[in-house]
Amino acid sequence: MKTSLLLALAFCFIGASARAQNARPPRIVSPEIEAGQKVTFRLRAPKAAEVVLQGQWAKQPVPMTRDADGVWSIAVENTPAGIWEYSFTVDGLNVLDPGNPALKPQREPGKSILHIPSTPPAPWDWQDVPHGTVHVHDYQSKALGRQRELWVYTPPGYESEASKKFPVLVLQHGSGDNQQTWVQHGKANWILDNLIAQGKARPMVMVMLDGHPLGATGFNDPAKRGAAMEAFQSELFDDALPLIKSLYRVETDAAHRAIAGLSMGGGQSLTVGLGNPDRFAWVGAFSAAPLSPESAQKFLADPAAANAKLRLLWIGVGKDDFLRQRNEDFVAALKEKGIHHEWVLSEGGHSWPVWRQYLSDFAPLLFTDAK
Amino acid sequence: MKTSLLLALAFCFIGASARAQNARPPRIVSPEIEAGQKVTFRLRAPKAAEVVLQGQWAKQPVPMTRDADGVWSIAVENTPAGIWEYSFTVDGLNVLDPGNPALKPQREPGKSILHIPSTPPAPWDWQDVPHGTVHVHDYQSKALGRQRELWVYTPPGYESEASKKFPVLVLQHGSGDNQQTWVQHGKANWILDNLIAQGKARPMVMVMLDGHPLGATGFNDPAKRGAAMEAFQSELFDDALPLIKSLYRVETDAAHRAIAGLSMGGGQSLTVGLGNPDRFAWVGAFSAAPLSPESAQKFLADPAAANAKLRLLWIGVGKDDFLRQRNEDFVAALKEKGIHHEWVLSEGGHSWPVWRQYLSDFAPLLFTDAK
Repeated sequence: MKTSLLLALAFCFIGASARAQNARPPRIVSPEIEAGQKVTFRLRAPKAAEVVLQGQWAKQPVPMTRDADGVWSIAVENTPAGIWEYSFTVDGLNVLDPGNPALKPQREPGKSILHIPSTPPAPWDWQDVPHGTVHVHDYQSKALGRQRELWVYTPPGYESEASKKFPVLVLQHGSGDNQQTWVQHGKANWILDNLIAQGKARPMVMVMLDGHPLGATGFNDPAKRGAAMEAFQSELFDDALPLIKSLYRVETDAAHRAIAGLSMGGGQSLTVGLGNPDRFAWVGAFSAAPLSPESAQKFLADPAAANAKLRLLWIGVGKDDFLRQRNEDFVAALKEKGIHHEWVLSEGGHSWPVWRQYLSDFAPLLFTDAK
Repeated sequence: MKTSLLLALAFCFIGASARAQNARPPRIVSPEIEAGQKVTFRLRAPKAAEVVLQGQWAKQPVPMTRDADGVWSIAVENTPAGIWEYSFTVDGLNVLDPGNPALKPQREPGKSILHIPSTPPAPWDWQDVPHGTVHVHDYQSKALGRQRELWVYTPPGYESEASKKFPVLVLQHGSGDNQQTWVQHGKANWILDNLIAQGKARPMVMVMLDGHPLGATGFNDPAKRGAAMEAFQSELFDDALPLIKSLYRVETDAAHRAIAGLSMGGGQSLTVGLGNPDRFAWVGAFSAAPLSPESAQKFLADPAAANAKLRLLWIGVGKDDFLRQRNEDFVAALKEKGIHHEWVLSEGGHSWPVWRQYLSDFAPLLFTDAK
């Protein structure tokens, strides 16, 4: 090859980078995490009059300061360990951190994620243990007649087992989230990896559906909620669980099937789980929306059947949760009827730090008497 | 159960919804897609002085109009079919559409996704054909000593085959994107599903790494680019491909292995692919950054070896791409040396509509002479 052509290639190579660097302002690093859990947040917004940081770890928004180049910043010292949501408010408008690729999957995306690991590691922190796999299935829902997405977790070692079958936990998100949120933000996969590595939870398959079968307004509109619940159940039974059965080595009897969820997903879990004791013997309600009055009436009407079939009914809610009273009412009804259950009134509100802890506490209780 | 308690539960159920509705302003629907490919975009920004829509399908930004409630909107008639990036500019600040959960995975997230299907369907449109599965692996990289994420596509029917092994395409993203982007925005999985259903492509496994092993600045900083390329290759050979081999039924010889990528990922594919002919016999460069001068010199020095080992060297670039000249220079060198290659100078610039088309054209050429 001619030397001139090689040189031309070399200059092009360098030139491409110079061009890219000239075309853009300096890269903003945000969030920047330094020793002492000092976290600096930055946003380039030269025309803004006011920028504040909204961080889930703090009770109040914190004003940010503008520099001469129009970059707003704030350094937060001693940020507590945890997985936190945050965003910026720019002259009243909520915006994600454009410097941070970690976004909370939401129906209406509005939060970035800051992850400060704990010492020693929390169940939701990354640890160097064997890891499972998360699988994303796009499928044509027969129940709904349109494209849907389903996330599935298989435990470490699943691929190398030739014939072993695994129990199944259906794990549902809340109204503002979607089928990705339990993994991407809740770290359900890392929680199970860590619990399994410690011998605290049995290897299981987790299945996460989009809980809004009728679109965003279904469960939020009282007039549509019944139809939305029916559609959720149809899709679970007619699409999702058959798909899982066809592609994964799973047990399919009630003793090997659990359903749990948070908020809206808790209401779905109570309604579908308690309404189908021949399909689910393990039910978890995390800060749950109440089950429908008809479902509650039917379930509470036969305590003997409930106690005979249910292996676990686990209910947890935070002391500061706006759904606390409703959960306490349901637990009062269970007590009145003598229906076995586990009840946790924890610290915290209606938020992900509570739900990660609940999954960490709930998963070890599952499938304990199943073969 | 006492009727009073049941009634209380019922009122709570209704009350929870009423409370949620009272607490929030009316939900903004954006984007709203209606007949005639009319798309309405909306953003609530009461304090903004100017809001414009930046849409990839249009040459110019379009101003939006404010209503009395502070909601800005614009209705776009006859939006062309395609998968498009868009964002709002609010008083100079780029913001995602908070009404739209579909976000382009980026190192610095800043684009929402609008998908208008074509008639008849394009290769990247959802079609009711058998679908493969996308797998997400979090792993501890030995090469890098930290947590990494890897995405893998397996073709339809993979799970039900007992022993068949599949060829592998390593498919890499560009500098601004990440390991999720080829699936979430590029629709690489749907493209393969559709091509396989039509008998146009062979079933294959696709592997997508995070192409920034040294963090965001690695490949963008000329001083670090060599080290970043070495780290990418080490992680590919020492972590990613061994993980794939241990968990999937894949062929591992060069005749059954391809590597392709776009922009930065194209440069990686050329450098790693052409530099390792005993590992990859099929190489694709989509709007590629050039391979390093040393790599180019080494590869071009032995045309006979290149022609003996390479089954396909495919190079495509758009007429409006800022990397056009560099690709033309490389192709000129290949011609001068008599090294076999396929060369496409297409319409378009440095953008995803071009790369979806390239994958649709490239994948059918792969593994054609492999058993």
